[in-house]
Amino acid sequence: MQERHKPVQDESEPTLNELAWDLVQQALFASEELRIELLDEVAGATVIDFGVETVGSLGAGLALAEVCTAGLAEISLCSGEVDGRGWPHVFVTSDSPIEACLLSQYAGWRVGTKDFFGMGSGPMRAAAAREPLFETFDYREAATHVVGVLESNQFPTEAAIAEIAEKCGVETANIALLVAPTASPAGNLQVAARSVETALHKLHELGYDVTHVESATGWAPLPPVAADDLAGIGRTNDAILYGARVTLMVHGDDEAVTSLGPRIPSSGSPAHGRPFLEVLEQAGNDFYKIDPLLFSPAEVVFHNIETGRVHCFGELAPSVLRESFGM
Amino acid sequence: MQERHKPVQDESEPTLNELAWDLVQQALFASEELRIELLDEVAGATVIDFGVETVGSLGAGLALAEVCTAGLAEISLCSGEVDGRGWPHVFVTSDSPIEACLLSQYAGWRVGTKDFFGMGSGPMRAAAAREPLFETFDYREAATHVVGVLESNQFPTEAAIAEIAEKCGVETANIALLVAPTASPAGNLQVAARSVETALHKLHELGYDVTHVESATGWAPLPPVAADDLAGIGRTNDAILYGARVTLMVHGDDEAVTSLGPRIPSSGSPAHGRPFLEVLEQAGNDFYKIDPLLFSPAEVVFHNIETGRVHCFGELAPSVLRESFGM
Amino acid sequence: MQERHKPVQDESEPTLNELAWDLVQQALFASEELRIELLDEVAGATVIDFGVETVGSLGAGLALAEVCTAGLAEISLCSGEVDGRGWPHVFVTSDSPIEACLLSQYAGWRVGTKDFFGMGSGPMRAAAAREPLFETFDYREAATHVVGVLESNQFPTEAAIAEIAEKCGVETANIALLVAPTASPAGNLQVAARSVETALHKLHELGYDVTHVESATGWAPLPPVAADDLAGIGRTNDAILYGARVTLMVHGDDEAVTSLGPRIPSSGSPAHGRPFLEVLEQAGNDFYKIDPLLFSPAEVVFHNIETGRVHCFGELAPSVLRESFGM
Repeated sequence: MQERHKPVQDESEPTLNELAWDLVQQALFASEELRIELLDEVAGATVIDFGVETVGSLGAGLALAEVCTAGLAEISLCSGEVDGRGWPHVFVTSDSPIEACLLSQYAGWRVGTKDFFGMGSGPMRAAAAREPLFETFDYREAATHVVGVLESNQFPTEAAIAEIAEKCGVETANIALLVAPTASPAGNLQVAARSVETALHKLHELGYDVTHVESATGWAPLPPVAADDLAGIGRTNDAILYGARVTLMVHGDDEAVTSLGPRIPSSGSPAHGRPFLEVLEQAGNDFYKIDPLLFSPAEVVFHNIETGRVHCFGELAPSVLRESFGM
Repeated sequence: MQERHKPVQDESEPTLNELAWDLVQQALFASEELRIELLDEVAGATVIDFGVETVGSLGAGLALAEVCTAGLAEISLCSGEVDGRGWPHVFVTSDSPIEACLLSQYAGWRVGTKDFFGMGSGPMRAAAAREPLFETFDYREAATHVVGVLESNQFPTEAAIAEIAEKCGVETANIALLVAPTASPAGNLQVAARSVETALHKLHELGYDVTHVESATGWAPLPPVAADDLAGIGRTNDAILYGARVTLMVHGDDEAVTSLGPRIPSSGSPAHGRPFLEVLEQAGNDFYKIDPLLFSPAEVVFHNIETGRVHCFGELAPSVLRESFGM
Repeated sequence: MQERHKPVQDESEPTLNELAWDLVQQALFASEELRIELLDEVAGATVIDFGVETVGSLGAGLALAEVCTAGLAEISLCSGEVDGRGWPHVFVTSDSPIEACLLSQYAGWRVGTKDFFGMGSGPMRAAAAREPLFETFDYREAATHVVGVLESNQFPTEAAIAEIAEKCGVETANIALLVAPTASPAGNLQVAARSVETALHKLHELGYDVTHVESATGWAPLPPVAADDLAGIGRTNDAILYGARVTLMVHGDDEAVTSLGPRIPSSGSPAHGRPFLEVLEQAGNDFYKIDPLLFSPAEVVFHNIETGRVHCFGELAPSVLRESFGM
């Protein structure tokens, strides 16, 4: 079997930022239908409201998730159940899961200035390439235009945009930023689209070589939009931790998977079993005191396409979802 | 949170009839594949057979449902179960549920002349704007071209078309009518695509301000096509009443929802629990003696995107579906 | 009700091979993303590697399945369960099931020369028209260009291509062949897309007039890619035999269905109940000694769109899947 291409930028292919830039134009074209709004210029950048002052929509959430993955994942709504009750789910599939989910979708950039805070995701991260991930994968985009998604309840300020411009090495006029709070329809949906991303990130943290993942599918219940962003962070995490089911098609030896085994899904963490907000409270409301290995889907199934072996870990926890979602 | 746009016609946007007109052209372009047929002129109007003399198809049913919702809902087939048996379902999602479902899809126009009868739906209703709904929502389209869907087992006559032209204020040459009997593949599918519409209509009847519904998803089993239209009316109603699951994303206070509570799903009606044809029989075969509040999905779940609260009502009744569908 | 069109070639419509040829161009256009590779010329033909030396992908599997059905079936991934575990499924729907599945998708051509072996499917079969099926349906395409899918772990040789050219009556330069082993992501997925095809073929073998099938939907679990092709043949068969659910919309009298009844699904065969590889072993590893009537989906449901009757046969066998998939 030929080795899969490493996520090294190939000059003949469009960059993640170029792919996402095109998707941003498409979203703007449908802005009325998506209930999103292009702001008047902030520091010359293209800032689009996906849910701060606009209502946003399910379509806006799908568009946001597609931009987040630079169009390298297919994302859609599907039918499903939570604890026996009909419930819409967010379905994801990707044949470029490292690029789509780790190099682009992962919310690894804390964009913080004196006057702004937001969790940054999307391909702009690959242009800044400040996170250790990019060194690990030896990936960096020499971009002229960058696209970022900000999970925030405020618009980026001039200072925040200046910081992004500086770290990415681009003009502020060549930055597109899509902003949605966690507790908004679009912001909420785009987190539920992170089932595969969360699995890959956890595996990477556990030391598994995630370039062995050739393809992935996953789905998670669409959490009900929360009243405020803290509650939203609780529910969106719970949707993944207790409701997400991910299948990874991998190559390589099975030992790399079985040695990690039950540590892979969220149940591998002692913090597992209570709604995320309770976990946070017990950690003194300090996000960074939560066991980082909690962040993983409820179920992770491996199909080893070389050895033919299958490894299943974890299980759904519908009763926690029922509590978290207030069903 | 910004108030959602009210369904008032915005001159910069295409009208529902314009949106639907484009979809009709697309359907005609694929007529061979969809097994639909453009009739020779009837009173100069474009009349398309989706199942009266043609067989029609699942694709024709999806096209019919999309025209019915003026393209403002996404409609697809998906996998599912009825009472443990694999069963295709019709999945609907919309970010413009009032426009898609109430102002367009709802079958609120009884097109009846001496020589024709059919239930009229689709955006032509918004051009005629004779139903109280249109006054409530203060919506009326000044249309030059109109599109209607007729649930009927006969083609519209010259008299029927003249009536539509007159009520819509258009030339008969500018009318497109898509016709399918309930007991045909396309006619049957387009009713199963009414899960969200039925929920909205029932809520509206109960006095709930449905402009609070920002987005909606729903699904219902595809009923087996019946031998005749009466049996078809039975099964398509049962698919919704006993098999549909709808999720509504709403804003506003929760009291507006909880005060209605268990009255919202079909189980809120005393007529609930028997196949629709039995209910009809017990009502002396007089459709108008049936409790109008029966017409609602089996399950309705609210996500209040302002307060974060979730309200779940109703449940599936698979045994009634089994009886109705003759499984 | 009008008789459905017989699958006789209509000169105004594109042929199956023309439809598939266009899809091949689209796949080549996306070759990087699909992880497929156009080979340097083999005997002047277009040979595309979907998984022999390339890794392939889920997208490549969907493309392969679409080419196999000449674009006359919609094929997608969807969420599902195997024995209570989240599991991606392959969903198929078609309004031209005879053309899509029997005249094109069925792997009825054993392409064998001294130096090559592969199971041939796709519309090239309709140009060769050597199988009895084509006489039965009185269908033959006078093609200048042909498209075939080869389930094989080697590339077609000059001799194999010459044989295809001769049987189809085309120049080797006008042949496109897509090659994937059973035990590859794309080759594996395209077999799981055969739920409807398998039902139709079994029904045809039982003597049912499959031109009565107007439309069909079906889904089957995506089997885990196996370590070798023999194991792959086991798992892909098991996905259909023990995991596929098919719904057929038919016309005609019910007796034609009920007289076959429980013989229709895979459980109609005495060989049913054990993983396919065991069945094969018990048949002395002679494929042709296996009861041919085993090859059928686990569940087959008929909706008779004329009489309104529903007939359900078979059931899932999750425990066999669990064993076969190594869960």
